[in-house]
Amino acid sequence: MIPVDPDRFLADLHRLREFGAAGVGKGVMRPAYGEADIEAREWLVSRIEQAGLIPRVDPMGNVFGLAEGRSLLVGSHSDTQPEGGWLDGALGVIAGLEIARAAREAGGPPVSMVSFQDEEGRFGAVTCSAVFSGLLSREEADRNVDADGITLAEARAAMADMSGGYVDPAWFSGFMEMHIEQGLTLDEAGEAVGVVTDIVGSRMLEVTLRGRQNHAGTTLMHQRRDAFQGLAAFCVALNGRLEEIVTPRTVWTIGRVQLHPNAPSIVPGEVRFTVQWRDSDADRLDRIEQSVRGLLDEICAGRGLESELKPLGDLSPVPMDGRFRMALAAAAEEEVPGRWRDMPSGALHDASNLAPVLPTGMLFVPSIGGISHDFAEDTEEADLVLGLKVLAGAVARIA
Amino acid sequence: MIPVDPDRFLADLHRLREFGAAGVGKGVMRPAYGEADIEAREWLVSRIEQAGLIPRVDPMGNVFGLAEGRSLLVGSHSDTQPEGGWLDGALGVIAGLEIARAAREAGGPPVSMVSFQDEEGRFGAVTCSAVFSGLLSREEADRNVDADGITLAEARAAMADMSGGYVDPAWFSGFMEMHIEQGLTLDEAGEAVGVVTDIVGSRMLEVTLRGRQNHAGTTLMHQRRDAFQGLAAFCVALNGRLEEIVTPRTVWTIGRVQLHPNAPSIVPGEVRFTVQWRDSDADRLDRIEQSVRGLLDEICAGRGLESELKPLGDLSPVPMDGRFRMALAAAAEEEVPGRWRDMPSGALHDASNLAPVLPTGMLFVPSIGGISHDFAEDTEEADLVLGLKVLAGAVARIA
Repeated sequence: MIPVDPDRFLADLHRLREFGAAGVGKGVMRPAYGEADIEAREWLVSRIEQAGLIPRVDPMGNVFGLAEGRSLLVGSHSDTQPEGGWLDGALGVIAGLEIARAAREAGGPPVSMVSFQDEEGRFGAVTCSAVFSGLLSREEADRNVDADGITLAEARAAMADMSGGYVDPAWFSGFMEMHIEQGLTLDEAGEAVGVVTDIVGSRMLEVTLRGRQNHAGTTLMHQRRDAFQGLAAFCVALNGRLEEIVTPRTVWTIGRVQLHPNAPSIVPGEVRFTVQWRDSDADRLDRIEQSVRGLLDEICAGRGLESELKPLGDLSPVPMDGRFRMALAAAAEEEVPGRWRDMPSGALHDASNLAPVLPTGMLFVPSIGGISHDFAEDTEEADLVLGLKVLAGAVARIA
Repeated sequence: MIPVDPDRFLADLHRLREFGAAGVGKGVMRPAYGEADIEAREWLVSRIEQAGLIPRVDPMGNVFGLAEGRSLLVGSHSDTQPEGGWLDGALGVIAGLEIARAAREAGGPPVSMVSFQDEEGRFGAVTCSAVFSGLLSREEADRNVDADGITLAEARAAMADMSGGYVDPAWFSGFMEMHIEQGLTLDEAGEAVGVVTDIVGSRMLEVTLRGRQNHAGTTLMHQRRDAFQGLAAFCVALNGRLEEIVTPRTVWTIGRVQLHPNAPSIVPGEVRFTVQWRDSDADRLDRIEQSVRGLLDEICAGRGLESELKPLGDLSPVPMDGRFRMALAAAAEEEVPGRWRDMPSGALHDASNLAPVLPTGMLFVPSIGGISHDFAEDTEEADLVLGLKVLAGAVARIA
């Protein structure tokens, strides 16, 4: 057993939200490498020192609190969306700090903690855990640019005075991450925690449909090749096609749409949109892609449109380690009997990058109303503490 | 008979396209009150003087070439879209110049010509013919602003040194306008001219659908209130609903669409779009509106969305004068027997503003490929000359 201190854990969690506090509820604005994010990381280093752990900030800005010798790594990320919630990755970081601290105070087992940098994707997505695990080269990461054209190399220069050497994943025996669910499942079921079975894979296509731009008053309906009508027909028909393929947890989204010329009195000559789908099963991702591509061909053939497809992302489903899942399940059943479930993660996490190089487990706590990436994001403090205890119980079983 | 000179007409038409020439095909960039537009109007005044007509530029920038005494007014507009074609309104202006000039040379009948200002809507739509006819007050027009926040009052100050007094519609016995069709009907049928029966009315609503913005990975399909899915369902269902209401010439368009937050991994919480429909029959416009509103209510009720509707335009259908139509039809049958038709105008024109105050007629010539508001806009010169002759024949019959 690792004797975690719920009050100290909650106090640190509330202290962390003061860095970049939005002034709206508990909301936080702490994007990666911004002033608030760097100040928060400096504070983390001071808490790591106070806990008697060895601080190490790697050149990417990942902050580690290291136990001596080979240890289990626990953590998440402390950067936020431009307008984010107070928990998100911060919860997992402070949980990691508390468990590593409590384990050290108890004389073992050896537990290290981490706050990865740029999980929220200012420069991509889960950027710096990908560099840590070797899935993304440092050179490639450094060339990534944010929405303002700043490179990651330029941004991380602001942390240069903090940084030491790189940390090797081989120093660790595994990785554990706690995170808010960011969905409604646990909240609606009244359950305390979810043991993540796998992080779903996702595919995304950027589709451009091209028809013919025309005057909306003088071009009769049968003369039109309206690109937006093509998208609307695709959107509705896709829902029908997918019914026979999907499970209740499969999701698909048309989230970004741009018409050209986007004027009320002009028949849209072009529309560009993203279609994204997520599922735990790689084969199902394939079958959905076939359905999407086939339907687009049919829509174009029937309407005199042309399509151009550009893959924008292809992430394979990532299963969590079986032993780590069992440790989390056993700890959950002890702490909150009957009030937990196995569930996939629909969102991407740092754990996705760690799983290929280390045995990895992940735990969810409920999100009130399923709200996240929003100032209103929240979780009952009692549930935060239950999550901490389940995580600590699982760490004790493994480490 | 009015002995028009086709060569002089074509030479003036080509001369006019030098003002604001885009350097791409015959394309023209001559928006209202811009440098090229004002230079073109100065040149028009010089041609009016050379023709022995009385030049008059009213304070709005409408350029008149007046015959002595009560006369028939013939013309259109010489401003263009930011990226426009060489014919559009310029054709009707030079046709008016040639007919007024030829009529004067022949000793009658008295014919005046006009180039209205800002038909293309830098400051609204058909702005300065609306002021001429009294449908829009000068004060209200002056307050209209363009996309850069410049008021019409500020813009027309650039023409102050040219301007004389206002012109009274009562000085004229009627108005005739020639224009390119801007659609495919005449081109596809191989016909030379179209006699406009009426200018169709139009309605437009700006619709906002509000659902719930959510994470596209963690929000299951049955938990979503996706505003864009609501729009797609509306778009497809509307096509079905309208089948029982419309004629083959009714048109409807969803031309402008804006999602919020418009990001690939976020379920769209809001979509704002325009839906516009046009028809010659006011009652049918009403029935379509009922269908649009009813369907939006159903879509929202079924999907947990909220809608907000803002009317953006309501133009009644404008019938052309019966005697003017008959004169145009008789002239067409004489000049191009069997190669003309009666047809509505799907686009708005200056004639829409003149019809309430003067007997008004309108004639179309073919648009190659139906292309307009585009550098590629064109019409065979033989068809331009046939249009001129039919218009002159109709003017001779009336004046």
